[in-house]
Amino acid sequence: MELTFLGTSAGTPTRARNVTGLALQHGGPRHWYLVDCGEGTQHQLLRTRLSVMQLQAIFVTHVHGDHTFGLPGLLSSASMNGRTTPLPIIGPPQLRNFLEITLASTDSRLGFELQFINAEADDFHWQDDAVGVTSIPLSHRVPCRAFRFDELRVERKLLTSKLEADGVPAGPEWGRIQKGEDVTLPDGRYIASKDYTEIPRPPRRVVIAGDNDTPELLAGACREAHLLVHEATYTRNVAERVGPWPQHSSAEQVALFAQAIGLPHLVLTHFSSRYQFQAGRGPVIDELAGEASAFYDGNLVLARDFMQLRLNRDLSLEALDA
Amino acid sequence: MELTFLGTSAGTPTRARNVTGLALQHGGPRHWYLVDCGEGTQHQLLRTRLSVMQLQAIFVTHVHGDHTFGLPGLLSSASMNGRTTPLPIIGPPQLRNFLEITLASTDSRLGFELQFINAEADDFHWQDDAVGVTSIPLSHRVPCRAFRFDELRVERKLLTSKLEADGVPAGPEWGRIQKGEDVTLPDGRYIASKDYTEIPRPPRRVVIAGDNDTPELLAGACREAHLLVHEATYTRNVAERVGPWPQHSSAEQVALFAQAIGLPHLVLTHFSSRYQFQAGRGPVIDELAGEASAFYDGNLVLARDFMQLRLNRDLSLEALDA
Repeated sequence: MELTFLGTSAGTPTRARNVTGLALQHGGPRHWYLVDCGEGTQHQLLRTRLSVMQLQAIFVTHVHGDHTFGLPGLLSSASMNGRTTPLPIIGPPQLRNFLEITLASTDSRLGFELQFINAEADDFHWQDDAVGVTSIPLSHRVPCRAFRFDELRVERKLLTSKLEADGVPAGPEWGRIQKGEDVTLPDGRYIASKDYTEIPRPPRRVVIAGDNDTPELLAGACREAHLLVHEATYTRNVAERVGPWPQHSSAEQVALFAQAIGLPHLVLTHFSSRYQFQAGRGPVIDELAGEASAFYDGNLVLARDFMQLRLNRDLSLEALDA
Repeated sequence: MELTFLGTSAGTPTRARNVTGLALQHGGPRHWYLVDCGEGTQHQLLRTRLSVMQLQAIFVTHVHGDHTFGLPGLLSSASMNGRTTPLPIIGPPQLRNFLEITLASTDSRLGFELQFINAEADDFHWQDDAVGVTSIPLSHRVPCRAFRFDELRVERKLLTSKLEADGVPAGPEWGRIQKGEDVTLPDGRYIASKDYTEIPRPPRRVVIAGDNDTPELLAGACREAHLLVHEATYTRNVAERVGPWPQHSSAEQVALFAQAIGLPHLVLTHFSSRYQFQAGRGPVIDELAGEASAFYDGNLVLARDFMQLRLNRDLSLEALDA
């Protein structure tokens, strides 16, 4: 499972950071999902290997413009580039009205179908061959969701010594048993796959949250999660100066939550545009890292645009070269 | 009068060129207008000295997304940056519906008023202290306009030898006469400004066109114009391959028109994303330049992103360092 951060700024873009967009790859390099789509997401994609032709679904946490204004352009460009495959758009129900009216009033006709799916429905669940996705309500100025991605197909390990001990001859049957298939041997014996295989590791589980002032709402969803991507719009002192109205989290809040639940990997993103990479012109992103690491002992990462992270099968998190 | 090209690609952005946006400065460096606003225009502005706080008006040639999808984000960012000054939005009447629904359905509340003005009205005319603007209907898949910007205040030249010959004493009165004011001298004589000043040059006139397959529609508007910015989406051979449906112009068509009316300065822009700066991966922008220069003897410029051009008072066109 690979994450590519396409934008890490809150509200407005800066020269170094775009507004929110996050690509999640799983099931091969040409199989990816987009979570949120701020203005300029399609421009960011031009600097990656990801193509809208292979995009499997778009997930939208909430309607705010810094998470949605890139949708009409990305969809139009996909169409102009020849996409015909239907595209699920999974998010708040208002998205449908926004997109349909935007596309109609700008004479933008898509060459593929948009399949709108309400992520706020009580029974929301989505899956394809590679992942199952659920949504978790958060606390923000508008309805907002986190999405939990669960890996669906964990490769089974064949218990070869047990097969040999029971006299199941090596051959094509072993391959079928490993793939989860029950087989009947030539001698009439029924071999159930589950008796001769084991699942050697937990399925990977990643939670990607939208804007949220109450990280604790994710306690249930983060149980057995390996990685949480969460906003940390401010440091605590800036959050106190700004006041509660924007309904964002501070780095301290998210770190305390991640520590309390024993989360292995925490990635912070969605930093207020006031935070700079370099000292000299206002607060720096290092202040957010410093604050979070004071409260969280796990693996802390502060996202930056075009950062690529891979959650390996052994559940280690690896930064890839851009 | 200064032009800054914020995007020179048609339809979709490329790594080197954004979709359409053009800044026109006149009346001081902090007084500028935006013509069209494709997605990412606010990002491009971050790399210039122009600020949305000093933006005087937005002109929109037509509703297509590559000319409009940047509007919601640019307006929202202006609001988040503290703009309170009302902003005229001058364009097709459908813009109002598009923007109002987009902003409402994304919970984007602006801290300033949008003043929608229908550029397609028969009696359309707009002006401020610096420029007067008219619109000209073009031929495209949707209603589309060109905007003609006429400089309003040309500095008067004082006829000092005539003033001296008539015994008008040098003093504060000379300054008032130069500014166009009629004065009564201490001896009772009435001095009309127009009799003692002259306007030493024609007012600068710039025509900025939207998408259009019939440049000849601009013949009237370009009379006495010094500069035309016009799309040249394709070379003639590509245009013939694509067919007439997109209703764009070829470089040849625009060049022939500019030659026929004796236009001093022609700036081509809005090049199909297939055209690259460097040879090797498809057609190059130089092919468009080569085609146009074969038919046009005037001053030909092919726009590129962040190019700045100044139309001087002496009507020469100067490329400024970025």
